[in-house]
Amino acid sequence: MSRYYRLVVSCPDQVGIVARVANFIAQQGGSITEASQHSDLETGRFFMRYEILADSLAMGPDAFSEAFRPVADDFQMDWAVTDTGKLPKVVIMVSKESHCLVDLLYRWQGGELACDIVGVLSNHDDMRSLTEWYGIPYQHIPVNPDDKQPAFDAVEAQIEALQADCVILARYMQILPPALCQRLSGRVINIHHSFLPSFAGAKPYHQAYQRGVKLIGATCHYVTEELDAGPIIEQDIHRVTHCHTPKDLVRFGRDVEKSVLARGVRWHLEDRVIIHGNKTVVFN
Amino acid sequence: MSRYYRLVVSCPDQVGIVARVANFIAQQGGSITEASQHSDLETGRFFMRYEILADSLAMGPDAFSEAFRPVADDFQMDWAVTDTGKLPKVVIMVSKESHCLVDLLYRWQGGELACDIVGVLSNHDDMRSLTEWYGIPYQHIPVNPDDKQPAFDAVEAQIEALQADCVILARYMQILPPALCQRLSGRVINIHHSFLPSFAGAKPYHQAYQRGVKLIGATCHYVTEELDAGPIIEQDIHRVTHCHTPKDLVRFGRDVEKSVLARGVRWHLEDRVIIHGNKTVVFN
Amino acid sequence: MSRYYRLVVSCPDQVGIVARVANFIAQQGGSITEASQHSDLETGRFFMRYEILADSLAMGPDAFSEAFRPVADDFQMDWAVTDTGKLPKVVIMVSKESHCLVDLLYRWQGGELACDIVGVLSNHDDMRSLTEWYGIPYQHIPVNPDDKQPAFDAVEAQIEALQADCVILARYMQILPPALCQRLSGRVINIHHSFLPSFAGAKPYHQAYQRGVKLIGATCHYVTEELDAGPIIEQDIHRVTHCHTPKDLVRFGRDVEKSVLARGVRWHLEDRVIIHGNKTVVFN
Amino acid sequence: MSRYYRLVVSCPDQVGIVARVANFIAQQGGSITEASQHSDLETGRFFMRYEILADSLAMGPDAFSEAFRPVADDFQMDWAVTDTGKLPKVVIMVSKESHCLVDLLYRWQGGELACDIVGVLSNHDDMRSLTEWYGIPYQHIPVNPDDKQPAFDAVEAQIEALQADCVILARYMQILPPALCQRLSGRVINIHHSFLPSFAGAKPYHQAYQRGVKLIGATCHYVTEELDAGPIIEQDIHRVTHCHTPKDLVRFGRDVEKSVLARGVRWHLEDRVIIHGNKTVVFN
Repeated sequence: MSRYYRLVVSCPDQVGIVARVANFIAQQGGSITEASQHSDLETGRFFMRYEILADSLAMGPDAFSEAFRPVADDFQMDWAVTDTGKLPKVVIMVSKESHCLVDLLYRWQGGELACDIVGVLSNHDDMRSLTEWYGIPYQHIPVNPDDKQPAFDAVEAQIEALQADCVILARYMQILPPALCQRLSGRVINIHHSFLPSFAGAKPYHQAYQRGVKLIGATCHYVTEELDAGPIIEQDIHRVTHCHTPKDLVRFGRDVEKSVLARGVRWHLEDRVIIHGNKTVVFN
Repeated sequence: MSRYYRLVVSCPDQVGIVARVANFIAQQGGSITEASQHSDLETGRFFMRYEILADSLAMGPDAFSEAFRPVADDFQMDWAVTDTGKLPKVVIMVSKESHCLVDLLYRWQGGELACDIVGVLSNHDDMRSLTEWYGIPYQHIPVNPDDKQPAFDAVEAQIEALQADCVILARYMQILPPALCQRLSGRVINIHHSFLPSFAGAKPYHQAYQRGVKLIGATCHYVTEELDAGPIIEQDIHRVTHCHTPKDLVRFGRDVEKSVLARGVRWHLEDRVIIHGNKTVVFN
Repeated sequence: MSRYYRLVVSCPDQVGIVARVANFIAQQGGSITEASQHSDLETGRFFMRYEILADSLAMGPDAFSEAFRPVADDFQMDWAVTDTGKLPKVVIMVSKESHCLVDLLYRWQGGELACDIVGVLSNHDDMRSLTEWYGIPYQHIPVNPDDKQPAFDAVEAQIEALQADCVILARYMQILPPALCQRLSGRVINIHHSFLPSFAGAKPYHQAYQRGVKLIGATCHYVTEELDAGPIIEQDIHRVTHCHTPKDLVRFGRDVEKSVLARGVRWHLEDRVIIHGNKTVVFN
Repeated sequence: MSRYYRLVVSCPDQVGIVARVANFIAQQGGSITEASQHSDLETGRFFMRYEILADSLAMGPDAFSEAFRPVADDFQMDWAVTDTGKLPKVVIMVSKESHCLVDLLYRWQGGELACDIVGVLSNHDDMRSLTEWYGIPYQHIPVNPDDKQPAFDAVEAQIEALQADCVILARYMQILPPALCQRLSGRVINIHHSFLPSFAGAKPYHQAYQRGVKLIGATCHYVTEELDAGPIIEQDIHRVTHCHTPKDLVRFGRDVEKSVLARGVRWHLEDRVIIHGNKTVVFN
């Protein structure tokens, strides 16, 4: 497997950005294997993602970043250089539903998700044996319904201790406190089991059944302080009919949820997702 | 083209309904070419739709109905017998967007929609030449924004004069008054340009763009007094990305709207849709 | 979980079948919870599937069958009564690719597949620990490329010893000999990793890549003597672009394969699939 | 509507292409509004498409091309500059099926297809009134089944006389002679009513029905000498069941055909499609 550096940029749009960036990379001898750009005409913001073969460059990622800084400053860029040789650390949080966790672990083991899964946290102990079968540490952090803050403090401490770059709520079913959402902004990915903005909140499949919709869905999004209202990364749907009970909707939904979450997580881990206000640019 | 009678039934579920109905049809020598049934376990209601080859019966639709009445009474059925030899009368209402009207007229001319289109009503005069090219009468009924009731009275009078069995709001863009919705209950089909219940009301594609959804949709539903809240017949979606502007969403949406509306209308005209509370049973 | 009897019938179409069957069931007090029928106009054949609440009948499945026999004889029916209280026995065959096996076992454990998985057979030993984790016996039956018959004899002996009602080729990657296909006719389900009839045979994703198709697919079908040519139960597709390498196609394909196979297997196990020549009637 | 120049390039991949091209454009003050790139790892070929705001450049398209030539030569580019201010000329060819023609003309009138439709050619006279309603010249060129060459000579003469940049076979149903296919290579777009490579040749829906597939499809592709084997631009599918007759397949297929063709044609007209061997790169 080749190693790449990824340069991800967003900045105010103007003439000459691509020329300057591409020049810089060419001067270093960099071989661009994938390039994506987007100009948002409404906000006048420019986005780009370049994947560069590490072997084609004479310098390491830190030196590359240092050399790039003047370019970034000239264009007031929000930017980052990541190195596929250094895997991001991921914490997964679950409750009692296993389908998303099972799917993520299986894909991770098969090489579909380029990350280190450094821990699974749960308010229940049910998923311990499965998680440990994959050699991943499992933390049971019970949530006291009458006083949830101590549990969330423990969650936050664990996330810090594990140095997680990314937290995946794989059907965690607890609402994280606003302060924690803020501190982890842009790093927490949730799967909601409806086609947002329809059926935010609790029991979306039952809401969908009562409304009589003909399609159900799932939404992968970044967590923000406002429940189920963060930037959407990916969505998908499944067709239903009058024959299907809420139990059928839950069953179909499991398949949609896990594939939507897996796609969203993969794109995030590959630095393909850029948050832009309450929306996302996804270079997939 | 063969002629069929369609028997559509809903009633409280109990043992023996199918036997009794099927016996009755067999005794008349009726050849069933399509049969659909559904038991709703939540409400205990039973639904059925039988398509019977007219030539296989010794009697006409009225005599058939008369003979069936005792069966219907025994099971407290809501029921109807329709005759494909007698086309339902349809009125289409439009505003300035032509795509749904054009699509319906083209399908109707090609034999996809078994109905008589007895008139097109519009608050604008734009679609007159297109409509009249198909040989269909066009009525321009302007709506005064400060006093809409006279226009709606004229609309209602036209619907009655044309003896319409069904009214299709093919992007009419005006909200019918509640009293009219009630009087035409179960006979007015609307296309809403969002995946309901998301983005009810005005400018749904702009709402969808602002929310940053990754799928847009359209919903075909029966009109009730509450705006965009009636029983859903059909829905579908189209994938969008950060590249797409509101104008692109409108363009993609046109294709979704027209195909969703055409399917919903076809099923309604073929007596495949049964309203069940605020939901539908669709035997398609 | 309630218990049901399923009556599945195919016979030459004629007036009175439904009446006779429904009468028979009603006379036994049978409560029909799901009913499906189809008349094939091209071949004049009739198909039906009734699901009857076991508790509503005074007799067991054998007595029910015995009582039904005269009806079946009168209409020259191919027919069967199954009892959801008696789970069908299933053997899964795999090679080295795990995704379909993992998916089936997970769904089975979660109650989505109503069967007893009585064994997993493989030409490799790779899937042993996974299979045994689920408490299922694993048989490694190596295939000698120069003389495959002994392995297939062992496979057949195992299938008989395990009294398998159904064999699932979950990416087994070996072609069963014609005689075995014949003996197990209608009981062996395969997943082929292309949208048949495109790309039958070996390496379909590479064939698809070379042809430059914009959609790849998978096909679940019954195995017959002719390779990849048996009755199709289910198919689905995934969109691809010029960006995707054969490796990406394989990755997308895994998701399509496992969901298509799972649907096909579920429908087969629920007696929803009737073979009709080289086609299927699927009452899903 | 703003005016753009589109620069479309393919060449052997090497370090520095993007830098050189982007530099060139930046030096002219060019504002890039859309940029797409692709490196084909298998063949080592590089593809790019830039959309540049015409007003941001000091020169016209011819001077721009002249100035770009040295860059192109250095990298051995196949390249073109197009000007959205100069619409490509399109000829549509049809037989008796109207759905694709109707759909293309409607989209064209609504501004979805940026081209001049300079003529419709047909082996029948059926579509004359529809075509002329849109103000487009119609040529009836009958094909003698016993000697087709004179008709094809007349077709070719018309295409030349009309200076067509692009020919769309919107269900023309005649096979163009190989020599004509060669002369118009890369400029003739066909819609085939199957999911190629399945069911090439005649009566694909009947082939699909006989095979019992669960999905039917349509394929938009460039015409080459080998029937239905040219580079694929776009494909899509529609789900079918045992309930559907060949007539239903034809009906569903019409909707798939027209939307697949419309997408393919739009992308071609916007210079989003680059032929690469027998495949396509589509920057959509």
